[in-house]
Amino acid sequence: MFKQGETIEVVTEGTHHKGVFIKEEKDFIVIKLSNGYNIGIAKRNIKEQKSLSKAKESQAAEHHAERKNSKLPTIALLHTGGTIASKVDYETGAVIAKFTPEEIMGLFPELREIANIDSKLIANLMSENIRFHEYNLIGKAIEEEIVKGAKGIIVTHGTDTLHYTAAALSFMLENLDIPIVLVGSQRSSDRPSSDSAVNLISAALFITSAKMPGVFVCMHEGMDDEKCLIIEGVNARKMHTSRRDAFKAINKGLVARIDYNHKKIDIIRVKKESEEKLKLSLFDEKIKVGVIKSHPNMHSDELKCYEHFDGLVIEGTGLGHIGITDSDEHSKENSSVKAELAKLAKKMPIAMTSQTIYGRVNMNVYSTGREELEMGIMGNYCDMTPETAFIKLAWLLSNHKKGGMKEIKALFENNLCGEISERSEKKEF
Amino acid sequence: MFKQGETIEVVTEGTHHKGVFIKEEKDFIVIKLSNGYNIGIAKRNIKEQKSLSKAKESQAAEHHAERKNSKLPTIALLHTGGTIASKVDYETGAVIAKFTPEEIMGLFPELREIANIDSKLIANLMSENIRFHEYNLIGKAIEEEIVKGAKGIIVTHGTDTLHYTAAALSFMLENLDIPIVLVGSQRSSDRPSSDSAVNLISAALFITSAKMPGVFVCMHEGMDDEKCLIIEGVNARKMHTSRRDAFKAINKGLVARIDYNHKKIDIIRVKKESEEKLKLSLFDEKIKVGVIKSHPNMHSDELKCYEHFDGLVIEGTGLGHIGITDSDEHSKENSSVKAELAKLAKKMPIAMTSQTIYGRVNMNVYSTGREELEMGIMGNYCDMTPETAFIKLAWLLSNHKKGGMKEIKALFENNLCGEISERSEKKEF
Repeated sequence: MFKQGETIEVVTEGTHHKGVFIKEEKDFIVIKLSNGYNIGIAKRNIKEQKSLSKAKESQAAEHHAERKNSKLPTIALLHTGGTIASKVDYETGAVIAKFTPEEIMGLFPELREIANIDSKLIANLMSENIRFHEYNLIGKAIEEEIVKGAKGIIVTHGTDTLHYTAAALSFMLENLDIPIVLVGSQRSSDRPSSDSAVNLISAALFITSAKMPGVFVCMHEGMDDEKCLIIEGVNARKMHTSRRDAFKAINKGLVARIDYNHKKIDIIRVKKESEEKLKLSLFDEKIKVGVIKSHPNMHSDELKCYEHFDGLVIEGTGLGHIGITDSDEHSKENSSVKAELAKLAKKMPIAMTSQTIYGRVNMNVYSTGREELEMGIMGNYCDMTPETAFIKLAWLLSNHKKGGMKEIKALFENNLCGEISERSEKKEF
Repeated sequence: MFKQGETIEVVTEGTHHKGVFIKEEKDFIVIKLSNGYNIGIAKRNIKEQKSLSKAKESQAAEHHAERKNSKLPTIALLHTGGTIASKVDYETGAVIAKFTPEEIMGLFPELREIANIDSKLIANLMSENIRFHEYNLIGKAIEEEIVKGAKGIIVTHGTDTLHYTAAALSFMLENLDIPIVLVGSQRSSDRPSSDSAVNLISAALFITSAKMPGVFVCMHEGMDDEKCLIIEGVNARKMHTSRRDAFKAINKGLVARIDYNHKKIDIIRVKKESEEKLKLSLFDEKIKVGVIKSHPNMHSDELKCYEHFDGLVIEGTGLGHIGITDSDEHSKENSSVKAELAKLAKKMPIAMTSQTIYGRVNMNVYSTGREELEMGIMGNYCDMTPETAFIKLAWLLSNHKKGGMKEIKALFENNLCGEISERSEKKEF
C-alpha cells in the first residue's frame, strides 16, 4: 500500500480521484483532495491506483513559509479546540484534540486562495469545559486582531457549547465593524465525512464577500456538503448530537446561505454597521448564574442550592411556567417550590425562558405565568433561547450590577444585539 | 347584535357560514360551526347576516341525555385540564380552566358521529402543576375504563407537560390492547383559531379506525387545520411555546397522519399488540428525581442539592457531556463539578441525555464522555428525550428499586416500550 502523505491517483467505475493518501482501513482507503476535504473510497470499487509523487517531508512548515498575497484580505484564525482541530487516536479509536494551528493550515489549503491567514492558538479545549475565563481570552484576542487590521476573524470551536460562546461574543463586542465567524465540525478532520473544510472555507467566503459586521456561526445546512448557513451568534443552537446539519437558527431567519460548490453567497438579511468605536465588555469570572429546568414533581431543594448565586435562568414549560400550585391536598411540594422561588426572586434577577426552544415567552396568558411575573421574574415577551438568556444574564451581571435589579431587568427584556426579535402586537387568529 | 347561542347565517364575498353565535369583538364576530370548530369573521367583510333560530337554553344537558348509538364503539374521555377545556375570562382577558366534561361534549358535537363518549373529570389542572400523583390517578382511571370495555381512551391534557404524561403512561401501562391518545390544545376552545376540535376529533378517528394499542399523542401537523399527527407517547415533545404544530416526533417517525378534512388515516408504523394481560405499575410519589442542565461556568453547588435524591438526569451538551476538566489553572470549578458528580454517581443512578434534543447519546467518542461512563453514568447509546429519560428513571426507581443500581441501569439502557430506537452499529461515512 501507499505511505501516508504520498500523492496518489485512484480510478473507480466512473470516478477519478487525485489526492494525498491518508490511511487504509479494512474496506476502504482515505485520500485528501486538493480542496482539503477527505474522501473514503471502497477498496472493492477500485479499478486502478498509482503513486504520483512521494510524501512531502514537512508540508505544514512549507505552507507556513508561504508569502502573503497582497491582493487578498487577511483573516485571523483563532483556535480554541474541538473536533475541527482533532484527529482520531488510532490506538483507542477515540477522538482527541492535538493539532497545532500550523497543522490546521495544512489541512485546509483551499483557504489560501480566499485570504491571507494569521493563526493563533488561544486554547485547546473540548468545548464542554469552556468557562467565562475563555470568553474573555477570546474577546481580548479578537480585539487584538481587529487592532492589527484583520478584515474578519474565524474562531474555531468545539460544537457542544459553540452557540453559548457565539452569544457571549455578541454581547461582549459592541460596535463591531468586521465579521467574526465561529466554526465547528461535527466529524473530526481526518474522517472522510468531516464537515470541517466546507464549514471553514464557507466562513472565509462569507467574510471576504459579505463584509458584514457581527458575530455569526457558519455550519452545514444539510447532510451533504453543498450549502452552509450563516446564523447570528445570538440565535444559533445545536439541535442534534451528531448530524452535520445540527445547527439551526432559532426564532429568527438566516443571515446568509453559502453555496460551497459554486462559491456563491446568498445574503438574506443584513446586519447594520455601527459608527461607534469597538467596545469590549468582559465577563466577571466570579459571577454565578444557575440554570434550572422545570419538570414535573419538582422539589424545593432543587432551587435552594442557588441561594448564594448572582442570578438564575429557568427553563420553564410552554409559554414560561414552573409548577407552583398544589394539585394534591396531601403534597405541598409545588407550594414549597413557589415559596423558594419567591425568596430567590427577591435576592437576584431570575429570567424565564422555555424548554420548547422555539417561540416567545408569554407569562400573561395563564395564572401561573402571571403569579411568576408578580414575583418579579423577567423575560416576558422574550424569544431568546435558554442558552442565550443564560449568557445575557451573566454578561449583564458582569457589567451592569451597579444599576441594580431595575437596570438589569430593563436591559434583559430589551434587544441589545439581535437576541430578541421584534415583538408583534398583532393578535394571532 | 345576536345573543350567545343563537344559530345564525353570515354571508361574505365568496363564503357562507351557518353556526352558533359565540361572541362579538371590536373587528369580528365568532361563530361555532357544526363541526364544533370556531371561526372568526371580520365585520368589514360581512355582506349579510341573519338569525335562524334562538339560543337553546340547555344544549349541554340535552346532549347529555342523548342515547348511545349501539353501532358505534365507546371511547372514554378523561379530562385532566388545560387549554382544551378552558375559556377566556372576559374580565381579565386571560385563559382560565373551568369547563365541566358536559360542557366539553357540547363544544365538540362532531364526536358523537364517531363514537359513544363516556366522560370523566379526573382533575382540572394547568399541566405545569401535574405531579406523579396525577399520573397514578390517570393510570388507574384508564385501567377502570378498560375493564368497563372502552375501545379507546382520550386523555385531554394541558400541552405544557403533555409529553411527560404521555411517557409516564407508556411505562405504566404494559400490555395495552387499546389506544390511549393524549390530546391538548394550543389555543383555548372559544378562540376562532382553536385547535381543540380538530385534535380531539382526529384522535377519535384514529382510535376507531386504526385500533392500534399503545399510548399516543394527537396534535396538529401544520399551522392549518388539515392534518394531525399521531406520535408515540415516548417520543413526542413540545417544540414551540405557542404554535399549533408545536408537537414533534423526536428521533423516531410518526405512527400515523390524520387527514381531518377527508377523514382519512394514513398508518405509517404499526405498534405490536400484546398477548399478555394489562399490567399497571404506578409511580412512587415519594421518589425524588432531579434534572440538571449542564451549561458553561457550572459550579459544584448546582449538583450538591441532589445529595438526598433517588436519581438524577443530566441534560448534557452534544453527545452527552458535562464539563469536568479545568480549563484555567486558577479555577478548579470544573474539577469540583467532577468530584461532586462522582460522589452522586456512587449514591444514585444518574442518566445522561442531550440538550440538543435530537440525536443519540454517545459517550465513547470523547474523553469527557468516557470519564463520565467510568463514573457509572448511564444512558450511553440511548436516544430518549431528556423528558422521557426523566420519566423512565422515576418509573424504574418506583418499580425496580429492589433490584439495585445494576437492574435499574440494565433496564434504563434497554428499550421497554419504544423509547429507544434500534441501534445502528454501522459506522457513518
